[in-house]
Order: sequence, then C-alpha cells, then structure tokens
Amino acid sequence: MTSEIRLTVWNEFRHERESDAVKAIYPDGMHRVVGNAINEQLGDAVSIRFATLDEPDHGITDALLASTDVMTWWGHGAHDEVRDDIVDKVHRRVLEGMGLIVMHSGHYSKIFKKLMGTGCGLKWREAAERELLWNVNPGHPITQGIGEHIDLPHVEMYGELFDIPEPDELIFISWFAGGEVFRSGCTFTRGRGRIFYFRPGHETFPIYHDTQIQRVLANAVQWAAPKSNSPYRLWGSNIKEPLVPIASTHEVDESLH
Amino acid sequence: MTSEIRLTVWNEFRHERESDAVKAIYPDGMHRVVGNAINEQLGDAVSIRFATLDEPDHGITDALLASTDVMTWWGHGAHDEVRDDIVDKVHRRVLEGMGLIVMHSGHYSKIFKKLMGTGCGLKWREAAERELLWNVNPGHPITQGIGEHIDLPHVEMYGELFDIPEPDELIFISWFAGGEVFRSGCTFTRGRGRIFYFRPGHETFPIYHDTQIQRVLANAVQWAAPKSNSPYRLWGSNIKEPLVPIASTHEVDESLH
Amino acid sequence: MTSEIRLTVWNEFRHERESDAVKAIYPDGMHRVVGNAINEQLGDAVSIRFATLDEPDHGITDALLASTDVMTWWGHGAHDEVRDDIVDKVHRRVLEGMGLIVMHSGHYSKIFKKLMGTGCGLKWREAAERELLWNVNPGHPITQGIGEHIDLPHVEMYGELFDIPEPDELIFISWFAGGEVFRSGCTFTRGRGRIFYFRPGHETFPIYHDTQIQRVLANAVQWAAPKSNSPYRLWGSNIKEPLVPIASTHEVDESLH
Amino acid sequence: MTSEIRLTVWNEFRHERESDAVKAIYPDGMHRVVGNAINEQLGDAVSIRFATLDEPDHGITDALLASTDVMTWWGHGAHDEVRDDIVDKVHRRVLEGMGLIVMHSGHYSKIFKKLMGTGCGLKWREAAERELLWNVNPGHPITQGIGEHIDLPHVEMYGELFDIPEPDELIFISWFAGGEVFRSGCTFTRGRGRIFYFRPGHETFPIYHDTQIQRVLANAVQWAAPKSNSPYRLWGSNIKEPLVPIASTHEVDESLH
Repeated sequence: MTSEIRLTVWNEFRHERESDAVKAIYPDGMHRVVGNAINEQLGDAVSIRFATLDEPDHGITDALLASTDVMTWWGHGAHDEVRDDIVDKVHRRVLEGMGLIVMHSGHYSKIFKKLMGTGCGLKWREAAERELLWNVNPGHPITQGIGEHIDLPHVEMYGELFDIPEPDELIFISWFAGGEVFRSGCTFTRGRGRIFYFRPGHETFPIYHDTQIQRVLANAVQWAAPKSNSPYRLWGSNIKEPLVPIASTHEVDESLH
Repeated sequence: MTSEIRLTVWNEFRHERESDAVKAIYPDGMHRVVGNAINEQLGDAVSIRFATLDEPDHGITDALLASTDVMTWWGHGAHDEVRDDIVDKVHRRVLEGMGLIVMHSGHYSKIFKKLMGTGCGLKWREAAERELLWNVNPGHPITQGIGEHIDLPHVEMYGELFDIPEPDELIFISWFAGGEVFRSGCTFTRGRGRIFYFRPGHETFPIYHDTQIQRVLANAVQWAAPKSNSPYRLWGSNIKEPLVPIASTHEVDESLH
Repeated sequence: MTSEIRLTVWNEFRHERESDAVKAIYPDGMHRVVGNAINEQLGDAVSIRFATLDEPDHGITDALLASTDVMTWWGHGAHDEVRDDIVDKVHRRVLEGMGLIVMHSGHYSKIFKKLMGTGCGLKWREAAERELLWNVNPGHPITQGIGEHIDLPHVEMYGELFDIPEPDELIFISWFAGGEVFRSGCTFTRGRGRIFYFRPGHETFPIYHDTQIQRVLANAVQWAAPKSNSPYRLWGSNIKEPLVPIASTHEVDESLH
Repeated sequence: MTSEIRLTVWNEFRHERESDAVKAIYPDGMHRVVGNAINEQLGDAVSIRFATLDEPDHGITDALLASTDVMTWWGHGAHDEVRDDIVDKVHRRVLEGMGLIVMHSGHYSKIFKKLMGTGCGLKWREAAERELLWNVNPGHPITQGIGEHIDLPHVEMYGELFDIPEPDELIFISWFAGGEVFRSGCTFTRGRGRIFYFRPGHETFPIYHDTQIQRVLANAVQWAAPKSNSPYRLWGSNIKEPLVPIASTHEVDESLH
C-alpha cells in the first residue's frame, strides 16, 4: 500500500481537438478538468499523470502502468483504435490490483468489455434532458458527502437495458426526463482490481465541471485504490506437495501430463 | 421456450484417442458418457448432439449453435487450438441466452475466460486423493436429489485461489485430502445466458460414471436452459423519440454525432 | 417437487371492506383478483387457496402452511395486527423452502422485515402519476413474456432509498413522472426459500387488473416454487464422527459442553 | 467520519469466569486479549472500550452505542440472556452505520440472526482437529497482510451447511481434518452497516493469541468502520412535492390515507 494514490487519467482526447463546441467546454481536454478536480479534492493524497490515445502506445507505457494505482478511462468515437496489446496490458494490471474507473461512453471501450464479458450495450438519446442521479447506496465510500440525489439539467440520456453482469454493488440509478432509467454507478471486482462504472459525462455538456460529480470521482479513486499488496498470478500452479500427507493407493499415470 | 431442451455436448476428444488409460475409461469419448448419462436422467426432456475439436469448425456450425439451448464444454490440452472466431460465436450465443456448462479443466478454455474477464487460474495436484464435494446450496435446482455431500475416492485436486469473479451463487465447495478447498460449483449470468462451472471430471478418473455427478449435470442442463424468449441485441440503439415529452431549451449540436 | 404448485394468496382485506372506492375496484377483495389472474395464466399448474387477516390465525393454519408451496402477501394498514407467532411460522416455512411474493405495501410487513434484517423503508407519494417499469433482467424467468417496459398511467409512487439488502437479482427498476426511481422487482434467497418483492399494486388503482402485472405475478409464482426437496434444519448439529479419521493429540475438555 | 475508530469489544464473559481451562487461556476475559491485540495492530487509529453480558444493560448503554463505530461480538452459551430491547438498539445502530464483527459462536447470537433473517445454524465437532483457513479474496482489505492460508493446529470444527444468506463477499473458506469445509469469513451489508462474520475463535483453544487471526480482526475493524456520514432513517417518508411537476388528471382519494 502506498500512502499516496498514483492516478493516471486516460482520455481519447479527440473531440476536444476537433470540435469547437467541445473545445469551449474542455479547452485543454477533458482529462485536465477531471485530473485537476480530483487533485483539488484529494490534495496530497493523490499524484496525477495523464495519457491520451494519440501518444505513442496511447501514452500507456509499461513503466506508467506498473506505477499506476488507479486509472480513469474516457473514450467514445475511437474505441477501435485502441491497440489490443495495450488493452491486454491494462487488463492484466487490473487483475493485479489496479483500480479502474470507466466513465460515460467508456462503457463500449475494449477494456470494459473484456473485463465484463458481455456486450455492454445500452440505449441513448441526445436531447439535453434532465437527469436525476439517485444515490441508492448512501453507506458506500463512493457516495460519501453526496446527498440523496444529484440534479443535472442537461445531459445525454443512457437507458436500460445496460448489458453488464449483475454489479457487485449498485450505487446510483438515473432518472431521465424522457422516461428512461439507468444503473449509473456500478462496482465490480475482477482479480485483485476494483472497477467503478460511472455514467455521467459527455463531450458537449459540462458535466465534469459539476462539483458533486467531481466529488464522486474523487471518492471512487480512493475506493478503487489497491487495498492489499498480495501478489497476483495470472496462471495457476501445480502443487506437488500437499499440506497434509495423502494416503492414496491409486496409481497416477504421469505420462499423461 | 421449447419444451424439449436441445443440448450439445462439446468435447476436446484428444486424450481418449491418444492414451490407452483414458480410452479404457471413455472408449467412445467422454462426451458419449456425459451425453448418455444426461439422456438417461432427462429422457424425452432433452435431445442431444455432439461436437468435437477436430471436426470442421470444431463441429460448431452456425446451424448447430442456433438450435442449441445448452452446451457443455470439456477441454484440456488444446484450448489454444479452438479458433477465436468460433469462440466469438459461442460467446454471442451465450449472451443471447444459450446455457453453458463448463466442466473441470474447461476453466482455462477461451470461452470461459472471455465470459469471466479474469485469468481463471487455480492450483492443481494429481495424487488420486479423496474429494468431498459439499452442497452449500441445497435449495437450488442444481442440487435437487443431491445430499449434503458427494464422496469421490480418487480425484485430481483443484485448489484456491480460483481466479473468477464472485459467482452469482455458490453451489458446491470441495474438500481435498491434501488440505485444499475449492469453489467447485458456481453459477454466473452473462447477457441472457446462464453459466455453470462444475469442477469434477478428469480424463483418468471415471468421474463421469458416478451417478451423483451425472445427476448434477442433468440438473444443471435444466437450470441453464433459456428461461425467456426475449430477443438480445449485442449493440444498443439510439432512441430518438422519448416515451415522455421533453421540454428542453438546450441546444444539441448534431454535427458531433 | 409436486407437479402442481400449491399457492396461498394472503391479503389484509380491510380496505376493500371499509372503502367504497376500493370496493369498486376489488369487490371481493384484492386476493380474489390476484388469485383468479394467476389461475387464468397457469391453469392446472397451480391450485389456489386464500387467507386473510381477520380469519382465525389470519387464515394461516399449520395445515395450510405445510401444504403451501408459494404464498403471496399483501398488507398495508394493519401490519402490526399480524401476530408474531404466525409471522414466526411463515418465516420458518420460507426457510424450509416455501416461496414468498411480497407485494407493494407488503414491504413494511413483519414477515418481509424479518427476512431482510433491515428497516425496509422507502419514500412514497400519492399523486396518480405515471410509472414506467423497466425490465432490467430480460433473461429471467420472472420476465418471460414481458417486453422492455410496462407502462402504468396512474400509480402511487415509491422512491429510493429502499432500505433492503442488495438483492440477489434486480429485475425491474421504476421511473416515476415526479422524478423518482425504485428497485421494483427484487429477488432474495433465505434458507431454502425464494422471495420476490414486486412493487406495483395499490388499493385505489386497478393495477392487479393489468394483464402484464398478472403475467409477472404468475411467472414469479413459478419461479418461487420450491426447486429442491432437501430437508431443512433450523438448528445445526453436533457431528461426533468425522468423515475422515482425525489424528489429534490435543485434549478436548468435555466438561465445558 | 472520525479519524479514530471507536471500537467496542463485547463479550459474554462467562466461560472465562466459570472454567479453569478457559481462565488459563484468557485470564482477564477473551475481550481483553482481542482488544489489546487490535490496539497493538492499529495503535492510535483506534480507541477501545469493553462491555460484557453481566453488566447493567449488558454494558451497552445508549451513550456507548451512539459513540461506537465498530463493535465486535462474542457469545456462546447465553445468547438467550441478551435482552431483546438491547438487541433492537444494536440492530438499529448497525443499520445507521456501525460496523459489526461477529466472532465464532456469535453466529447464533440474536443480533446476527436478526440481521441475516435466517436460522444461522451449522455443524460442529470438538475434536481439536487441524484447520486450514484459505484466503479466497486476496485483494480485499480484510486480507491485507495475510498469505494464501492460515494454519491452525487445534480447533473446534464448524461445517456446512451454514444457514446464512449468500454473503456480499466470501473472504475465507476453511478446511478441516475431519472432512468438512466452512465459509469462515463473510461480509454483509445491512442498512449503512458493514458486517463481517469470522469463524475462528473458541474458549478452549488459544485462537485469539494467533497473530494472523489478530491481523484479520484488526483489518476487519478498519473495513467495518463507517465510510459515509449520511443520515439513516428507519422509516420512510411521504413526499408531497415532486421534484418534477406532475400533470395528472386522476383523482386521488385523500380520505383513504
């Protein structure tokens, strides 16, 4: 356990460079706003680095990964451009214990689908409608400091059916003006790693400037940080020597193995 | 829902052809013993087909898959030879609702790892030791007719840590003479599909000739059969028209989408 | 397992006798509408009896309980009048394997709180508002034949936070016109028994006349019916003889036990 | 959130006064050993008080409860002597957010049964046999610093079936020399409160002198401490004013409510 959480904020960082509307909200990229907000909330308890799609290896070097405790992931239009070998490395690090916070349209990212084992589809609608984000787990560390709901005036709608495995814990359920609901905050565990999917966030709505959303993200970073330093082995092992002596008269045919 | 369950028993079917010791136990292949046993238990409630690795497309044609309600999977030494495109098709069918029963060394199959999102490793030892398989979910349909434990005199040991996500339900826990324990019966849901991992079974021990093991497999086939005929969409959809009229004054920039 | 499910429909049956408005909707009591609807859906697969609060022992005799596979429970204003000894008997039967379907205001019943271990509180509002009941588990037997949502024009609202343990499976999430959401269909297992909480239903709205709601109830009865005939022991037992011989040199002080 | 965890160690404290064998192991009571061990592990991060059955109100005053973040509970022969009104108060505090660690024979305590909703029975045998306690959740904060198993040479056996609801997380599975297995470390959430059941510990075996067991207990205290300061309401509330204006033409009959 390190006392300081080493956070890497990953961003596709395309919309912000290609669209004036998005640039107006996130001039230096969404990752900067997210990172700065978490930094403001957690102060010295966190150190933050950034990585983006168009850097070499998407900015995800082996050294960076090995020294990352928690990674946040935002992607949208270019999920397919993320290299499979990089996805495999991130996947491996999650199993080893790295926390992963998957944001908004990241539900369709390769890394999230690989961890879930399902299609991760959902419904959506862009009509700038109201969202009420209900806190259904007020005793959970991720909702510390959050009231019974968060009110967001203009958002993109995400609706059920959200094609994920049953979450370990359901944290938020969203209500949308147009009639849909959504499991907007879900926790999962895979290997040693803790995963939090968090719905809010969009390139054309200033969601990540909302202080309550920032608070949830900061809480989630703390929750997802590794809680144990036990080593992880991707592969199992052949245990020749039992802990307890075995009295067996049965022949084992070693030639088969 | 079909009234008859259409079962496909898939088997790697290599050990039985290559090893005299295995051939002595399963002369026509393990799949025949498994299939016949399930047939004996379920009678007209099930129709059974077989498929094996070395057939074209591993025997898993589109027509077979589309008409399969439940598939059992046994593989061991040749997991890597299963083609990725076939794995993707089986994965898609599970998400659509096909039940999948993963047996013994199938824990390392591509299809199981893809559904779990974890490494699926474990410990093992071949010392022909005793296994006591404890029924920890006696109200579950999979344990119907099974007492508080099953006693297997000579088995290969599988030990924790079993690197899987927390199962939906834990059905069996194994005790081994050499000191290990194992979560030997676990249920999972992915998409519409129900998955049961069942540990017992090995190429050189006659596990699948045990009537209690056969009973569990037959129960599992019934449990895993699709329970709903709702269609599955791998991809989400853009819902232009809300169910409830939305009054929003916010501009949506259509050029971004 | 009996091939026919023996269902008991329990109802507080006060509002229907005391209020003309309720009587107009349920002249013979809500239980009759619920029972007849399930009967219509399941036909010979179910046999139905009724029991109500003001009968001796609330109609719940030992003989009735012992021969009941599934019980539905509707109560509202008179939860406190249900005798504790009767609640204990119903609780015991659930642990033994009887299915229990708790409807609407039954969330505050003694039997539901005793099974959950929590307060079971929620928010409510009576404003005859619209409810959209989203099916978030379309592969589940309880949603067989149900589309992606059920639309109810005028209902009493139930809102989060619903103070229950995390359900085994979340089946429905409700959207309400006034801005709330609710986990409206939840499954739980306690002992051998399967429990389904289902929100819809109210004394002044004709919810139980809705054919989709009736379908869910009929599905739930089939789902909750006992799936195993293994006996249940409320108390554990002292196992003097181990399955495996123990070689221990440690003294056990029998005088302490 | 308090920075210091206020722990109350509760003990039945009868065996230690009545039996010389027990007194030899725990001369000042088991609670002193448990409390001192946790104190040694957590230092200033915890402040510890004690309470025992034969004190007035079992030592559990309203002031103590209100200022307790985590309580550990050990009882055995005198569960029935714990007053129901005190149990109700402890139950309420758990729902409000107090962590509860239930130890060994505490599985049959009134408070644990009330929180679980099941019978909580199990099998047992006193034969001073060996226990191997397998860590099946090495990424969990409760197993921080614990290896793949803990080896206890002489223990009382607890065997499945353990009659509890499916735990949120399974942390430890025990192997016993005589052939049984047991879910020995289980987490649950009820209301805002986190509950950890931990099997090891007995009045005639010096289990709580084992440093690894002490480590687990100290970890569990930290894990169970409240993670959110959101208020808890045992009862729900009538929400007259919707968040979103409702246009309903349906009459609500206020006379019914």
